[in-house]
Amino acid sequence: MALDEFEIVRRWFRDGPAAAGVTLGIGDDAALLRPPPGQELAVSTDALLEGRHFPATLRPGEIGYRCLAVNLSDLAAMGAQPRWFLLSLSLPRAEADWLDSFAAGLFEVAREFGVGLVGGDLSRAPLGVCVTVLGTVPRGRAMRRTGARPGDWVCVTGTLGDAARALRLETCPGETERGRAALHERLARPRPRVHEALLLRDKASSCIDISDGLAADLRHLLEASGVGAFLNAEQLPLSPALRASCPRTEALQLAAGGGDDYELCFTLPPARWTTLDPELRRACTRIGEVEAAPGLRWRDSGRTFQPRAEGFRHFTSRGAPPPGDS
Amino acid sequence: MALDEFEIVRRWFRDGPAAAGVTLGIGDDAALLRPPPGQELAVSTDALLEGRHFPATLRPGEIGYRCLAVNLSDLAAMGAQPRWFLLSLSLPRAEADWLDSFAAGLFEVAREFGVGLVGGDLSRAPLGVCVTVLGTVPRGRAMRRTGARPGDWVCVTGTLGDAARALRLETCPGETERGRAALHERLARPRPRVHEALLLRDKASSCIDISDGLAADLRHLLEASGVGAFLNAEQLPLSPALRASCPRTEALQLAAGGGDDYELCFTLPPARWTTLDPELRRACTRIGEVEAAPGLRWRDSGRTFQPRAEGFRHFTSRGAPPPGDS
Repeated sequence: MALDEFEIVRRWFRDGPAAAGVTLGIGDDAALLRPPPGQELAVSTDALLEGRHFPATLRPGEIGYRCLAVNLSDLAAMGAQPRWFLLSLSLPRAEADWLDSFAAGLFEVAREFGVGLVGGDLSRAPLGVCVTVLGTVPRGRAMRRTGARPGDWVCVTGTLGDAARALRLETCPGETERGRAALHERLARPRPRVHEALLLRDKASSCIDISDGLAADLRHLLEASGVGAFLNAEQLPLSPALRASCPRTEALQLAAGGGDDYELCFTLPPARWTTLDPELRRACTRIGEVEAAPGLRWRDSGRTFQPRAEGFRHFTSRGAPPPGDS
Repeated sequence: MALDEFEIVRRWFRDGPAAAGVTLGIGDDAALLRPPPGQELAVSTDALLEGRHFPATLRPGEIGYRCLAVNLSDLAAMGAQPRWFLLSLSLPRAEADWLDSFAAGLFEVAREFGVGLVGGDLSRAPLGVCVTVLGTVPRGRAMRRTGARPGDWVCVTGTLGDAARALRLETCPGETERGRAALHERLARPRPRVHEALLLRDKASSCIDISDGLAADLRHLLEASGVGAFLNAEQLPLSPALRASCPRTEALQLAAGGGDDYELCFTLPPARWTTLDPELRRACTRIGEVEAAPGLRWRDSGRTFQPRAEGFRHFTSRGAPPPGDS
């Protein structure tokens, strides 16, 4: 049986996990949604295109997982509760196996974070996914990039550099393959820090998610706040898999500038550290301090340290296929 | 000076027309929006890809205009007031002239309908645009596809078939060129029927916008409502430009099945016709009547009439470059 776009929507996308606040879901010209009273809406959109935002080796289930996860990471950076999403999917051809896997990965994330697919469209074109996510946050309580103050600690969730190392393993066959599975998981299935963000919301003075790389994204945050920071490279949180996969200096470079981490980088008045939820504290590492002077200054155990790359920029970056840059 | 993605956002996209209800616009991980109290949110997304949803002959200003206009048409079909939009733009290269024109077309529509650009992303990739629009509608008052009842009139706004004829003129050089400019305008710069929709909102029993072609889209509406309809082809509203451009039978075929009209097709209990705003009545034509029996039955001045095509479907339709199918 031929699969046309309406049949694809019916078989794979209409019956995903339900979400609250949906008056009218897929099937009309627009979805109708009811944000809870007293809440602001947080909205973000990101395209993922094969070969630009993810390697062609990514499996369809991983593409499905990743396209929603990286968008939820943007909502997490604001401290917003994810609620709904829309999916614009371009496919070169309609294959049931591919759609089975893609939808399974997509709805795995949707189920875990309680977000409902409420609309979208389908086109026959080179593989590409554009996801728009909608979340809610109590009025005036969203985290922004603008609140960092001198003396605040600079902290990150989780570990950094794993996904960048995995991308290198995917694209440079000569690399040794130790720890490949654990690293690949971080590239293919980034876990958005939604739960951590909701715990951070009324504590952090500013927040951003790390997609282009710590150095590049932290710089955006510092510029928005009109401050600078001093960072200790030796405090960058490295996973056992990354440590096992490459020399320490390479691991630090990947953690500082590699990208695709989808961890949160936030600033925090030091007195608030002990008020953080203990589980959240265990997931976070202090890596430096906000200073009044603009710019980012690095040290590694007292020695100079300079991150190699500062984030991929579309249109001006050259060379290898870019890491994800949503 | 090289144009990187941040510079492009700064120069072309950050300072579009303002909109109400924006707590935080472009520049953070997500936008923060405040829907008015007592309103539902109407949300829709559509991708426009070169060669699939518009011909490569479309100028950048027309692409900018069209990508937002067709999305606003989806909000119009719901009777929603457009408020905000997000733009995911893929470009093969960054050229200032192209961006000047694209942004001018985009913001011309944005200004006219009072919608604000609040977020998005940029990628270097083949030309493609994915727009997500957000609107608001008083709770429970949105128009849907499901309310058509036997005895209701079937009506459309404006004239039909012009854009489909223009697409044919663009892609078949042998065609005569009479009326080309007027027809091209309908393809390049479709006017979303937002104002008409707000006047229709508490009158129409159901509504859909015509993107795939009257026959295909009306069929969706009738199926959703569990009814059928009888249509008079001789009552299809044809523009002078379309009548001058091709024989009557061809004009009727384009009006019935051509697509890309972005007019509204709605059903209306006959007693409500005289309660419509007079200006709205002048913009609308009655073309048939809803019947209990499923399916679409056509006559042309008492003779049989069968629309040639019934809407382009991605993945199964063959042949010529598809008309727009958002």
